[in-house]
Amino acid sequence: MKPLGPIPQGFSSSGGILSLGGRPVTDWVEQAGETPLFLYSADMIRARVAQLREAMPQRLALHYAVKANPFAPVLKLFSDLVDGFDIASGGELAMVQNAGIDAARVSFAGPGKRDRELEAAVAAGVTLNCESEAEARRALSIGEVLGRAPRLAIRVNPDFDLKGSGMKMGGGAKPFGLDAERVPALTREIVKAGAEWRGYHIFAGSQALDAEAIADTQAQALELAARLARESGEPLPHCNLGGGIGIPYFPGDAPADLALIGQRLEERFAALPEELQGTEFCIELGRYLVGEAGVYVTRVVDRKVSHGEVFLVTDGGLHHQLAASGNFGTVVRRNYPAAIATRYDAPVEEEASIVGCLCTPLDRLADKAGLPRADVGDLVAVFCAGAYGASASPASFLGQGPAAELLV
Amino acid sequence: MKPLGPIPQGFSSSGGILSLGGRPVTDWVEQAGETPLFLYSADMIRARVAQLREAMPQRLALHYAVKANPFAPVLKLFSDLVDGFDIASGGELAMVQNAGIDAARVSFAGPGKRDRELEAAVAAGVTLNCESEAEARRALSIGEVLGRAPRLAIRVNPDFDLKGSGMKMGGGAKPFGLDAERVPALTREIVKAGAEWRGYHIFAGSQALDAEAIADTQAQALELAARLARESGEPLPHCNLGGGIGIPYFPGDAPADLALIGQRLEERFAALPEELQGTEFCIELGRYLVGEAGVYVTRVVDRKVSHGEVFLVTDGGLHHQLAASGNFGTVVRRNYPAAIATRYDAPVEEEASIVGCLCTPLDRLADKAGLPRADVGDLVAVFCAGAYGASASPASFLGQGPAAELLV
Repeated sequence: MKPLGPIPQGFSSSGGILSLGGRPVTDWVEQAGETPLFLYSADMIRARVAQLREAMPQRLALHYAVKANPFAPVLKLFSDLVDGFDIASGGELAMVQNAGIDAARVSFAGPGKRDRELEAAVAAGVTLNCESEAEARRALSIGEVLGRAPRLAIRVNPDFDLKGSGMKMGGGAKPFGLDAERVPALTREIVKAGAEWRGYHIFAGSQALDAEAIADTQAQALELAARLARESGEPLPHCNLGGGIGIPYFPGDAPADLALIGQRLEERFAALPEELQGTEFCIELGRYLVGEAGVYVTRVVDRKVSHGEVFLVTDGGLHHQLAASGNFGTVVRRNYPAAIATRYDAPVEEEASIVGCLCTPLDRLADKAGLPRADVGDLVAVFCAGAYGASASPASFLGQGPAAELLV
Repeated sequence: MKPLGPIPQGFSSSGGILSLGGRPVTDWVEQAGETPLFLYSADMIRARVAQLREAMPQRLALHYAVKANPFAPVLKLFSDLVDGFDIASGGELAMVQNAGIDAARVSFAGPGKRDRELEAAVAAGVTLNCESEAEARRALSIGEVLGRAPRLAIRVNPDFDLKGSGMKMGGGAKPFGLDAERVPALTREIVKAGAEWRGYHIFAGSQALDAEAIADTQAQALELAARLARESGEPLPHCNLGGGIGIPYFPGDAPADLALIGQRLEERFAALPEELQGTEFCIELGRYLVGEAGVYVTRVVDRKVSHGEVFLVTDGGLHHQLAASGNFGTVVRRNYPAAIATRYDAPVEEEASIVGCLCTPLDRLADKAGLPRADVGDLVAVFCAGAYGASASPASFLGQGPAAELLV
């Protein structure tokens, strides 16, 4: 038997059935009219934002990284909860605009921005986190054509990475941002060109659970920002300290100690060097804000026994939950948290693997897990499905198409 | 410097630019009006089918596995080239129907078929490769309701796998098909229930390059089919021997020896046991028919140097070419074949990594490759993009959307 990841707090049971938003998932499935279905809990998102606001210094603004979950009702919910939005493409710009979010609250990072994306961003007044000198110059030219001073920040490729992070975005040769030593010159060039100077974006990694490492990285980012501001000779209006706070997906994972991160940042803010006294700071989080608030619900279509092993074949799969299948950025496959949603309080009765409906051995949602006995018609829940699920999976694979989504 | 995979045969150069279908890719990009762009060569697909027909016994029918590439013009092309189509979902059924393909030529395999998919398949007259007793019984009930005898075959989970295959579909506990020992009883049940009995589907693995291993597996499949037919006491009208012939993706890969596979199968066919004398045989191939005929073309948006390393940042990425980025079913990332399409004849001038436009370090199309010097505006070609590219990648990730596709 292989262990399952830890089920996030906030889910409950109603008549033996997994519940969220005050109703059993069977009700939500009935409302959606189909499975598979992503359910996102507005209460859990609100609670997570409140928890962060409580732990972090008041001075720290909170940005939502749209890439984690761009579902329109989720964006609208965040519109009232966070201070800013970070986007990664022209497509995401259209999404935040459709959600009625003011472009002045939006910044755009991404290493391969096309001219038409720069144009849309400059025209809308979005802050561009420039990933290279060439990109900054393209943005300046576009601003001239449009008769509008672009709002430009520089994405910095820091000399450090975030220890223990799932994705390292700094510390060596990277396609992201400018190597730190080239930042002061570009800062001066941008200011001289008459752009609206917006400061630095320093992102060292993501999906880390070690609070000490996150705090150390934030401290390093502050030191780097101060040094770059000093060397550039320009005041630093804004600094995005990146994100990095992860969520527990796998057996043995424990949540990051938010209080420690907040306390350490508070201490740093109390002793800021002169260059950063007037700077506005933000962190940019995606997964941490929505990841645990989402659950993927799929129905058992077949129950099979092969060579003594039980397989619960569902109508879902890796086309909606690529990362849960172990095929996205992980080397060794481990089980996400999962449960039989319609037998949520039942004890473990057997070892079973939960697989998807795709004709490939890669399509496994839980491997040899201890579960209550499930039959055809039962609902399976895969947790930690709020971020990088629906939008980060190959929904068209094998002609399947996207899953339904509901914010409840 | 890390090696690139071998560029498939059939591509040429025109004025220094990669050409297919008699024209340089720059022409096709102009026609499509955008990058990124998948280009599929009809000539190369036709040549591959002809090569297979030449090598394989005349008695062997050829099926196309739609999942490899369901682009409508590709399906229409195959309509005149192959004998049958294998689909994996109700969505793919709609695709083959939209392409005007007769449902009598279609078979449907997949472990999690929903009732509505079974209904559509039975109503259309598609052969269902039943993955379990329960699924066969659901199909029989649906047939009764519809007043139509379903066409049923049984997918067999063989006791052997395909040695050296990228994906093993047999040899142990699997969610696919029935364990061999349960097949005779279900065969009799299906025949007794009045269904149109269509035989066996025996699929042991895919993406293998070792011709001996493929031939051995086909021989084992024939033995298994004969044994199951004997034990069931029912004549075997049809037997799908699966696929398995892979294509070279990586440095050092060599194509499978088709002549050897054909010759070995010819020998087996000449000495068929009595149970298989009247059986129709087919193989089912997807990747082998289209994989090498496709190229993914993306434009260089930025050229960056970070800590001395060159990055060519493109407007494409893993959202269209997940497998090429090393994030789909592979443990160790290796480079697919790739080239600077607009400097196709130029010598290697530098080491560069080709990355996508996504804000993640996973988004790498070629790592530290030896390439001619490329600049902003140049086109990059990633080869072996004809199968499991456009439809098997998370196109919506980071708000990007799908690539254009052209059959030329």
